[in-house]
Order: sequence, then structure tokens, then C-alpha cells
Amino acid sequence: MLATTSKVFAQCPLRNALPNGRNVSRRLSHNTVTPSRVVFSGIQPTGVPHLGNYLGALINWVRLQQDSRPEDELIFSIVGWHALTLPQDPRELSRSRRDALAVLLAIGIDPKRSILFHQDENPHHAELAWLFNCITPVGKLRRMTTWKSRLAVSRNANDESEVDESLLNAGLLTYPVLQAADILAYKATHVPVGDDQKQHLELARDIADTFNRTFKAKSRMFPLPEFVATPTRRVLSLKDPRSKMSKSAPDVQSRILLTDTAAQIKSKIRGAVTDSIVGITYDPVSRPGASNLLTILAACTNEEPEEVAKRYVNKGHGDLKADVVDAVEELLRGPRTEFERIKDETAYITEVARAGAAKARERSRLTMQEVRRRVGLF
Amino acid sequence: MLATTSKVFAQCPLRNALPNGRNVSRRLSHNTVTPSRVVFSGIQPTGVPHLGNYLGALINWVRLQQDSRPEDELIFSIVGWHALTLPQDPRELSRSRRDALAVLLAIGIDPKRSILFHQDENPHHAELAWLFNCITPVGKLRRMTTWKSRLAVSRNANDESEVDESLLNAGLLTYPVLQAADILAYKATHVPVGDDQKQHLELARDIADTFNRTFKAKSRMFPLPEFVATPTRRVLSLKDPRSKMSKSAPDVQSRILLTDTAAQIKSKIRGAVTDSIVGITYDPVSRPGASNLLTILAACTNEEPEEVAKRYVNKGHGDLKADVVDAVEELLRGPRTEFERIKDETAYITEVARAGAAKARERSRLTMQEVRRRVGLF
Repeated sequence: MLATTSKVFAQCPLRNALPNGRNVSRRLSHNTVTPSRVVFSGIQPTGVPHLGNYLGALINWVRLQQDSRPEDELIFSIVGWHALTLPQDPRELSRSRRDALAVLLAIGIDPKRSILFHQDENPHHAELAWLFNCITPVGKLRRMTTWKSRLAVSRNANDESEVDESLLNAGLLTYPVLQAADILAYKATHVPVGDDQKQHLELARDIADTFNRTFKAKSRMFPLPEFVATPTRRVLSLKDPRSKMSKSAPDVQSRILLTDTAAQIKSKIRGAVTDSIVGITYDPVSRPGASNLLTILAACTNEEPEEVAKRYVNKGHGDLKADVVDAVEELLRGPRTEFERIKDETAYITEVARAGAAKARERSRLTMQEVRRRVGLF
Repeated sequence: MLATTSKVFAQCPLRNALPNGRNVSRRLSHNTVTPSRVVFSGIQPTGVPHLGNYLGALINWVRLQQDSRPEDELIFSIVGWHALTLPQDPRELSRSRRDALAVLLAIGIDPKRSILFHQDENPHHAELAWLFNCITPVGKLRRMTTWKSRLAVSRNANDESEVDESLLNAGLLTYPVLQAADILAYKATHVPVGDDQKQHLELARDIADTFNRTFKAKSRMFPLPEFVATPTRRVLSLKDPRSKMSKSAPDVQSRILLTDTAAQIKSKIRGAVTDSIVGITYDPVSRPGASNLLTILAACTNEEPEEVAKRYVNKGHGDLKADVVDAVEELLRGPRTEFERIKDETAYITEVARAGAAKARERSRLTMQEVRRRVGLF
């Protein structure tokens, strides 16, 4: 499904600045030279995340929260407006939107420490996006590879020359501008994104720079947000380990959801496609199935897959799978239990969303006041 | 200047529905069959209007207000966000923005009767524009003649094939979507626009219809706003009566501003280009100068120029000019005095703007609640 490309457009913590290892927070708190950071990350509301979403992105939000310094600001958003660039069932979107918030709470995002909110409850994003539209050339947006690939997919075309962009909606063309507004409304300095979204962050930097130069004043308006590389936890399908684990793959056995029971986890991992070679080695190209299991295990234990592989060099797939089952169950038990507990506490979820949006608006209002003054809308 | 094309994107009252003649309001109040109307009109903040703006558009807002039925809603907006699609000097824009409000008050828009507000103080317009972007094909926007002409002008090109759209900003491409949001945020039923903006109103109708079909429910979400033709009061340059009276023409003697003194009006009309033919006739093609003066006089007296011309068939240009001087001075004296009185009453202007924006937001909030429910953002 197309949505996955941008589902998590900011995916993981400040690995460059904040290594994810244990006991990092103590080390970081000694570092008082670096100015305080504002981290922004967003996720689309597309239902209960699977293991790939969790290990590839969300778990890092939690680690980042743990490892941050007290003066760092952390802003996590569920970006409902972006979801509307593709057709959605309104009832499902509404459910997914609430579930997304419940999941983030369940995995450990603390609304007292981080600003956690629905993008669509802060109109400043839409206002700022309009202003940014006015300083962003159409040509830049048409050069975004996400736009090009959407064009290609939409027409089932073999290459770009075959496609007709005129049928695609203007939201698909301009959503990278809304992303820039998502980030810059908070003057975010650090935006962890996956490689597929690197070009959009470059655009956000361009827009910040153009704004700073066009509407000059004594001080610079926007920081140029920094790209923070994400750790590569690319979790693959359990049934077809040549492709990513995906919410939209027809075979439900190919993915583990955050809400899967212990029995479901066991059955799915046991049934994962591997190979018949004796002994385990980490070789993603010729042994994708086994390597995927090693990746999952390594992510659960916060190690590198090559390291983990050494322990299985004389063991079989059965041993590896048994350990993966245990590790995944261990990893997901807490979030699953929490999610089941929280998800129907509508009043609590509503209150968290309300308070989060109020904090976000209070924060972005300061930016908008300054923006309006600079452009002349006062 | 390019801005003039869309400076007043909704220009005049409901001439079809509400003839501008005297004593009309009495007749209309008897008509209880027609459902109540919601009229939306917007003007860009581009400084003190000239006689062409006033007679071509603004005076009709006031007549509309006079002639409206109590149940009609009138919503007049100064559309600052649209101004930003072209480069603006921030200080000038800020001044023009406040002056535009003062002018509307000075000519008689009553903030107790009509909702009078700054578009950029109601974020619902930007939110709704984003949602509309998601259901509007890029191809439709590229077919707008305003986009094509901006392309042509921007490149100083001879025809469309020469131009490169990639350098123009995304605001220029998508502002017709923001216009649709301006209108539909209030479920406006009647939008008086000039011919140059007719295509944009067609787009707004398309968008309303697409939304209604995409997000179906028991009741129709948006009315399809109706085009209301504007009376043709095309006031021409006093120095070059082949072109429109324009704010950006280099010769200040070519236009009369709403703030011109009696002496300035006299000097400008006296110096207006006419011809040396004896006697006055209304013939816009071969006698554009004299015909322009007849148009101005007819607009002041609310007659047709052909009618007025009959009174001057045996008179000279001097007689006509003397009467035009008197009529224009008579017409502008009140607004000018009011504008001079109001324009520096910053506290009053600020309060009108604040109260107007609050009313506008209250009104559009109802629409947005319904919209959010339909698309699934709740």
C-alpha cells in the first residue's frame, strides 16, 4: 500500500546525537555544551502497528524519551491530515486515529514528558503550510520522488514518462509542504526520518532557509532542522522475506501485530519461511528468512544481528525460532496489555488528546505570532 | 500588476436576486418564498481603493447590505492569505490590511449587520483548504486561466507553450482551492464575482459537489454556491481610456483615490483625456474618454450611461466634466471624511477586526465540526 512510504515520516530517535545504548542518559546529562533540542516526529493513523512499525520507528521514540535531557523538547504527532491524501473510510480512520494515540501511550510515550497530540487539532500547521506554499516553487514539489512514485503507482505505469499527474490530487503534491509546517511550527531542530523521507526533510530545510532570507529580521526565524539517521531495523515479511512486513499484505501470517496474543506470535514465528541450510548465519541476500529472524531478535535485545548470529552458528532454525518467539512475546507483552487496557478508555484518551493539542497550540502560537509579524499579517 | 486580476474575487451584490434600484428592500421583504441566503465576498488588502474598485465592486457591497432581507447573512472578508501569493512588502501589507478594514467601514459596511473580518484570523479557511486539496486534481488547477495567465506574465512569454510553471509558487497554483474554502466554510449560497473569477467559482462548485459525493450522509454537506453576475461599471484610466483604471499605472493623474480631496478630484477630471468631437455621445469604442466620464457619472447617479448621455447631446466636454467633478465629489465626500476619521483609530479598528473574526470563526466552526465528522477526523 502506498501509504506506508510516508506512514512514519519521522521514524526514530536521535541516534547520531543520542546513541540508543543503555545508561546513555547519564552520559548525556553531563553534556551541557549542546543547546537544547526540539525533536519532532509524526506517524500516520493507519491502525494497530505491526512489529516492523514498532521496531523500525516507534520503539525508538520511547528510547529517545528515556535518553533525552530535561531541557530537550519532544513533540510526537499523529498526522491525520496526511492520511487524507489517500482515500480513507471515515469510520476506520476515526478508529485508527484513536488507536494510534492509545498505542503510543501503551508503548510508553509519557504525555507529561512529551507533547503528544493530533496534528489535525492544531490549525497552525495548516496556516503555516499555506504560507509555505507561497514560497515553494511547484517544480520542487514535482521533483519529490514520493510524488513521482505515486504517479507511477496510480497509473500502473512502467516508468514516469507514462504517467499523467493531472488526475492526482493537490494534497499529494503539496503534503511535503505540510510536513515542513509540521516540523517548523515548533522550530524543531532534530527530525529523525527514514531514508525514504530524507528528501522531504531537505525540502523543509530549503523552505526554512527561503523564509529566513525572504522575511529577514535581526534574528533568524527558523532553524534548519537536522536529519537524524534511523537505525536500520528493516523487518521483513514472515512469508515473503524479500519484501517489508506490511499491513496490507493479504496473508495475515506474514506480520505480527502489536496486539497479537502469545499463541498468535508463536504460530506466526513457527510458520516463518526460512531455508534448509544447516546452522544459522546472518546473510540477508542469500538467507533472507533466517536473517530476518536474527534482525528481529537483535532488535528485541538491542544488539546487532551479526552479533546475535554468532550464538546460533551451531544451532538449528527451531532453536532460533523458539528464542524469537520468547523475545517477541517478552517485547510485546507490556505494550499489548497496556493497549488492551487503554484502548476503550475513551474519556482518558480524549483528555490526553485535548491536553496535548492545547500544549502543541500554545507552543506553535509563539512561532505563528512571529511569522505573522514578519510577513505583514498584523 | 498581476494582483488586480484577483484583487476583488467577489465583487458585487446579488444583482440577479437583488436589483440595486431604490426602494428595493421593501419589495424584497415581502418575498418570503426564497430561502435565506448566505453571501460571501472577499477583497485583497492592496491599499486605498480607487474609483474603479469602489464603483466596480465595493459600492455594491453597501447596496447589498441595504437591500438584504433580515434573514440573509452577509459575510465580507479581507483576504490577506491570498495577497501572499505575490511578493509583498510586510510593512505595506500590514498598513493596507488595516486600511482595507477602515475603508469598508468608511463606505458603510456595518459590522453589526454584516460579518466583517480578516480571513487570516480564521484558521478554518486554511484547514478546509487542506481538506479540499485532497479531493482536487492537480490538472483542474493547472487549467485555471488565472494560473495560465500568471505563467505567461511571469515569463514575459508570447503564449502558454513558452512558459515554465516549475518556478511559480504552489500558492499561485492552489489559491483557487483556498477561495473555495473561503466560500464553503460558511456554506455560502451566493457569491457575486467578476467574470475573471467565474472559473474559480465553478471550481468551488465542483469541490462542493465532489465533497458531497465522496463523504455522503443523510443530508447534503455543502450547497453549490451560485454565480451572481456583477453590474458592469468598468471604470477606465483618465489618461489612457483604453485600459482599466489601475492602482499600478505610473501616472497618478490617471486614477481617483477614495481619499482624494475635492481639489485633486477636480484637477484629475479636468485633465481627463477626451476628444475634439462636438457634442457628447456614449460610444465606448470610438469615444472612450467621453464614454468613461459618462460611465462614472451614471454610476454615481445609479443610471445607465446611455441615459445620461441624452442630457449632454447638445453640451460640451467642459459641461460634462463639471458635472462629473460634482458627482464624484458628492459620492466620495462621505467615505473620504469617514476614512480620515476612522483610519487612525487603531483601537476601534482592532476591536472591529477582533469581534468580526470571532463571529466568523463561530460560524465556520459549525461547518468544520460537520466536515471533520464526515471525513473521519474525530
